[in-house]
This record gives sequence, C-alpha cells and structure tokens, in this order.
Amino acid sequence: MSPLADNQWFTEVFDRHGSAFSLKVSEKLLDVQSAYQHLEVYATETFGNLMVLDGCVMLTDRDNFLYHEMIAHPALFTHQQPERVVIIGGGDCGTLKEVLRHPSVQHVTQIDIDEEVTKAAERFFPALVDANDDPRAELLFADGVKWVDEAEDESIDVLIIDSTDPVGPAEGLFKTEFLTRCHRILKPGGVMVQQSESPLYHSGSIIRELRRDMREAGFSSVATLPFPQPVYPSGWWSVTLAGKQCSVESFREEAVAEHTMPLQYYTLAAHRGALTLPPFMRQALDETPVS
Amino acid sequence: MSPLADNQWFTEVFDRHGSAFSLKVSEKLLDVQSAYQHLEVYATETFGNLMVLDGCVMLTDRDNFLYHEMIAHPALFTHQQPERVVIIGGGDCGTLKEVLRHPSVQHVTQIDIDEEVTKAAERFFPALVDANDDPRAELLFADGVKWVDEAEDESIDVLIIDSTDPVGPAEGLFKTEFLTRCHRILKPGGVMVQQSESPLYHSGSIIRELRRDMREAGFSSVATLPFPQPVYPSGWWSVTLAGKQCSVESFREEAVAEHTMPLQYYTLAAHRGALTLPPFMRQALDETPVS
Repeated sequence: MSPLADNQWFTEVFDRHGSAFSLKVSEKLLDVQSAYQHLEVYATETFGNLMVLDGCVMLTDRDNFLYHEMIAHPALFTHQQPERVVIIGGGDCGTLKEVLRHPSVQHVTQIDIDEEVTKAAERFFPALVDANDDPRAELLFADGVKWVDEAEDESIDVLIIDSTDPVGPAEGLFKTEFLTRCHRILKPGGVMVQQSESPLYHSGSIIRELRRDMREAGFSSVATLPFPQPVYPSGWWSVTLAGKQCSVESFREEAVAEHTMPLQYYTLAAHRGALTLPPFMRQALDETPVS
Repeated sequence: MSPLADNQWFTEVFDRHGSAFSLKVSEKLLDVQSAYQHLEVYATETFGNLMVLDGCVMLTDRDNFLYHEMIAHPALFTHQQPERVVIIGGGDCGTLKEVLRHPSVQHVTQIDIDEEVTKAAERFFPALVDANDDPRAELLFADGVKWVDEAEDESIDVLIIDSTDPVGPAEGLFKTEFLTRCHRILKPGGVMVQQSESPLYHSGSIIRELRRDMREAGFSSVATLPFPQPVYPSGWWSVTLAGKQCSVESFREEAVAEHTMPLQYYTLAAHRGALTLPPFMRQALDETPVS
C-alpha cells in the first residue's frame, strides 16, 4: 500500500487526524537531543532543508515564507505604530527577520527556550538568520512564560507567540492564564498573535478555545487568518490575532499598499481575504461571526 | 522511517515533487478497472469516503467542498447571466451540484468519458449526486474533446473543465488546440474555467503554460485563483478562468453578497482575495501581472 517504508522519506503522521505528510530526503544533516526536544535537520530532494522537532515538521526552505510572513505582517500592519516587539519561541529566526523589515520597529526581543534551534538555523537555514545582527534584535534563550511574567505592565506593542503545537514545551502558551499575562504586558492598542493550527482540523477545538480564552483574558477583538502551508497538517494553517483596546479586524491598508518589502505571499488582498472566515469555519467556531 | 507500509493507509506519492500524502483507511469499498482508468473507493477514518483514479486522490467527503465550490462559483458569478453551462469531466457530479444552485442556469450538460465514476459517486458519495434529477441537468458519458468539436459555434455561456491531471485520459484537455475549440463554442461574454494544479508546484510550468495557451486560443482575459485543498498535492490548488471578449478579473459582487446558497468556503472575500496572486506566483508566471 505504501512505498514510503524506507529511509528515503521523512513522514509525519497526524494520528488524531488520520493523515500523514511525507518529504523525500537525501541526507540527515543533524540529530540532536536538546534539553527540551529532539531536533533533526534533513536535506530534502525538492523542499531544500527541513527542520523537525519531536517528529513534527517545523519548516522547510521552500515554503516557510508563508508561515513567517503571515505570523508577522498582519499583526504589525494591524498595530498603528509597532515599535517594541516580542517573539516567544521563533528560534529559527524567520519571524524575527520579517518583523525587522518594519521601519517603525525599534526593538525586538526573541525568547526561545532552546538555543539548539537557533544554532541549527544558523548552520542549515542561513537565509532565516541573516537579519540577526540588526542592532534592534535581541536574542534570549530562556523560558518565554517566565519572561512574560517578569515583563513590565503595558510595555510591549506587538507580542508574537511563534510556538510549536500545544503539546510538550509549548503547552503552557495556549492557556488562559498565560494569555492574561500577555494582555497585561501589552500597551493599550497592543496586538498579540499566535499560531493557531489547521482551519480544517482545529476550527472546532484549538482555534475555538484559543479565541474564547483570548476574549476571557481581556482582549477586545479577535481575528483568525487562514493561509496555505503545504508542510503542515492538512496543508492549511492559521494565525489568530487579538487586540487590547483596539480592533484586529482592520489594518493599515495604505501602509501595506505602499511598502517595498520583498514579500512572497502577504499582500493587501491576502490580508483582506483572510479576515473573512469561510462559512464552515464560522460554523465550527460556534460564535457570533467576527466579520 | 515510515509507519505507512501497511494496508491501513492509502498513500499518494507525488514523485516529481518529492512529497506524499496519506489517509488512514479502514476498508476498500470498490476496486474497478474501467475502460479508461483504475477506480478505487476507500472508507477513511477521518475524511469520510475517498475516491482514487489511477492512484491519484480525486476527492473525499470531508474536503471536496473546497474544489467543487471554487471550480463552479467564481466562473458562474463572473459570467453576467449564465444560462447554458457545460462540464467536461466532473463524473462525480459535485461540480454539477454547485452549478445547479444558480437560478439563472437553464441547462447543464456534463460529459464524462467514464460512467463508472458516476456509478461510484451514486453508491459511495450520495451527497454529490443529489441534484442529478434536476430537470436542467443532462449527463452524457462520452469523449468530451469530441463533444466540444461537434458543438455549435457560440452556443455556451460557461464551460467547466473538471478534469484529472494533464496525463492519461485528460492530457488532451490541456492543449492549445482544445482551448481554441472551447473558445469557438463559447458565446461572446462566455467564461471557461479549468482546474490548474498546485500554486506551489506548478506556477512556473502547468499554470504558466495554460495561461499562455488560453491567451493564444483567443481569450481576452485570464485569471488564476488559488485555494486550499488538503488532499491534493501540496494541499494548495488552483482554477484558471478565461474570458471570451470579457474580463474575468471582476465579477458580480452584488450577486455574491446577496445569494442564499449554503456554501462552506466560497465568499465575496474569498473570490476577491484569490484574484490577486501572491508575489511568488506572479514571479513564477513570468508575465505582466494580471492584477
């Protein structure tokens, strides 16, 4: 039935969803058990290098632009004047690179618990780390939940939760208690964004719960934006934005129309389009439509 | 490396693209070698029933709404008054069902070469065929290329090419010669739409060639609309529209806003959003941007 039972393929099985995705690999480049997770890097035949954490595909050279652009730009173009940005997770530095494209940004702190991820990105994904020496960037390797706990009230403009799935090290990043603390450290008008799994697989579960938890944590506005992501479960992914005393259902459209960043996916039309959820998602979310 | 080497999984390998997609199956429901192709139907654990033609996933209960809505509604809402519609291929009848939702439509002819596909849909995908007894619907089992050859000049409003991949039985549907004949049978103001493979895998090849061939066939306007489709290669798919003496870059937005069809994916925002291609696609297409 399956021709994938040899070491020419890396396969991720999404057991609960009865599906699996495979990439043909030519070489294993790295295999490290860090203090937090099992980190592998492969050379694939058609997707460039592939990073895997605890058996889950994190990114490939070929299609990471989709995720990194969509976790960064909708949030930064929604905030009126993003200056102080924090990234929890994001150790591969791809999100950091997108954030640093915004000229209004004065300081970005990235807090990933696992330095091995950044070391692997430096070796095997050089395109993702090439903005790391920007003087506005600060890389910390520490517990992001603890960092948020200790951060000052109302000190952040945009908070990006660029985490793995809500199991293992990232589990605490999907809880109301953590979201309440995120709300506390955002300035009024602040925007938080979190990767929020698959529209097809998770609209009635993780996405629905995250949106409810964000509202319970005090956010006044919530918006989930779907986008294609071929190497993630179902090939379709989402981010969910939340605004503190501001709406995340509109954004600085003029700024998007005028920017000269060399983006590959994010456009004015993509952002506008993503803000209206497909009817099947609205139904699964079982809440008053956001838009 | 792979846990998929047993008969609990159906796996489709996309050899040229170095990737594969698998669904967990509980039972094989049908295995028929027709005069044209090898047809299988499986019960899956999480996607409902699955239809496979010559080893390629055609559709599942769970996510076929994406493809069927996107091959039908953008074309029908682009045409000013679609009355006479023809579907080449589409033997599962899912596209026919979407077309019949449009009250302006007076007659739809579906021409699929392989009656076994429709028989399988009747048995295993009853939701797709439940509009087949609409008096406006005509089902023919014949060679679509020949049918187009014999059709009258300027007799069709909307022509839908709902084919398999451009290899095997459907190869002839992706050639300039066929597109020229399609152009001939469309009325002025007519719209043709063709499934056009993956934005990630095929922008620089099949999609680019199809758009060029459509222009060479005499169409005055061409637009490719990407959309998510989890069970197809890369989880991301597209349709390409072409207009005969009309633009396919705009559509009847008021009619979309007002319709009461029970759709699950297609919305005004989805259509608008899809009309602007991501920058990486525009670059791969290597042509003057469509929009």
